[in-house]
Amino acid sequence: MNPDNFMLEAFKEAEKALSINEVPIGAIIEKDGIILGRGHNKTETAKDPTAHAEMIAIREAAQKLGGWRLLGCRMYVTTEPCSMCAGAIVLARIEKVFIGTPDPKTGACGSLMNILQDERLNHSVQIETGIMQQQCEKLMKSFFQKLRKKKSEENSI
Amino acid sequence: MNPDNFMLEAFKEAEKALSINEVPIGAIIEKDGIILGRGHNKTETAKDPTAHAEMIAIREAAQKLGGWRLLGCRMYVTTEPCSMCAGAIVLARIEKVFIGTPDPKTGACGSLMNILQDERLNHSVQIETGIMQQQCEKLMKSFFQKLRKKKSEENSI
Repeated sequence: MNPDNFMLEAFKEAEKALSINEVPIGAIIEKDGIILGRGHNKTETAKDPTAHAEMIAIREAAQKLGGWRLLGCRMYVTTEPCSMCAGAIVLARIEKVFIGTPDPKTGACGSLMNILQDERLNHSVQIETGIMQQQCEKLMKSFFQKLRKKKSEENSI
Repeated sequence: MNPDNFMLEAFKEAEKALSINEVPIGAIIEKDGIILGRGHNKTETAKDPTAHAEMIAIREAAQKLGGWRLLGCRMYVTTEPCSMCAGAIVLARIEKVFIGTPDPKTGACGSLMNILQDERLNHSVQIETGIMQQQCEKLMKSFFQKLRKKKSEENSI
């Protein structure tokens, strides 16, 4: 299975977040080629600091599987997960995470720290970074550029 | 305000978790002396790896406040939060966390790592550990002792 196919689905989720003015991040959970969970960031819309794409996808997949252990599952996420989401990925026993683009500011899967592969924890997660990286990076950069421009215009009024 | 009063409420939540055979951890979110969120661990019952006490309390408080920023809020939690919950506490901009007992195996607020006070993140959280420590520690130890005994009996059949 080509990881690009599933990352494309995660990217579509990120575009959904963009369409509601949320930080454009999307995530998919897949097992044996079947998508079990989808999510896009909606912290503002849901008024919920935990409503990251990865958390929503994990919770949906757990409901589908009927338990909290997502054994044999893989996550595809457009931007490197933060420490909350990385912690949840370890707790859920996800097998592998495919990442679109790194997040040097808050990424907890190799950038600031690496919670997915901390040998002191009882589960380790494989990581592959750089799937559809250009598109994922462009989506994020373009969102934050527009946000900065909007804030700058507001401040100059 | 005496932190013991609020930790007692978190402890009552932990006892609720114990009563349904979940790892006995409870959490409270308080602002200006008013409890805005309560939660107890229910990962097994809810079939949800993210259903930790802290996450449930944070989500409830955010709904009550009508937004994801829990400014001026304090958390009281019976056991040191893991990396998922510590990440959520930082994302929610919680002011201070009162901890019952440290968790040397998965604690991410000073034990394995300290996500609450990582200067590279855009928010830092005050920490006070050791509130009702003996009771909180005893509750956890007793739960895991019983669990080990049960598993040992099952294996000997």
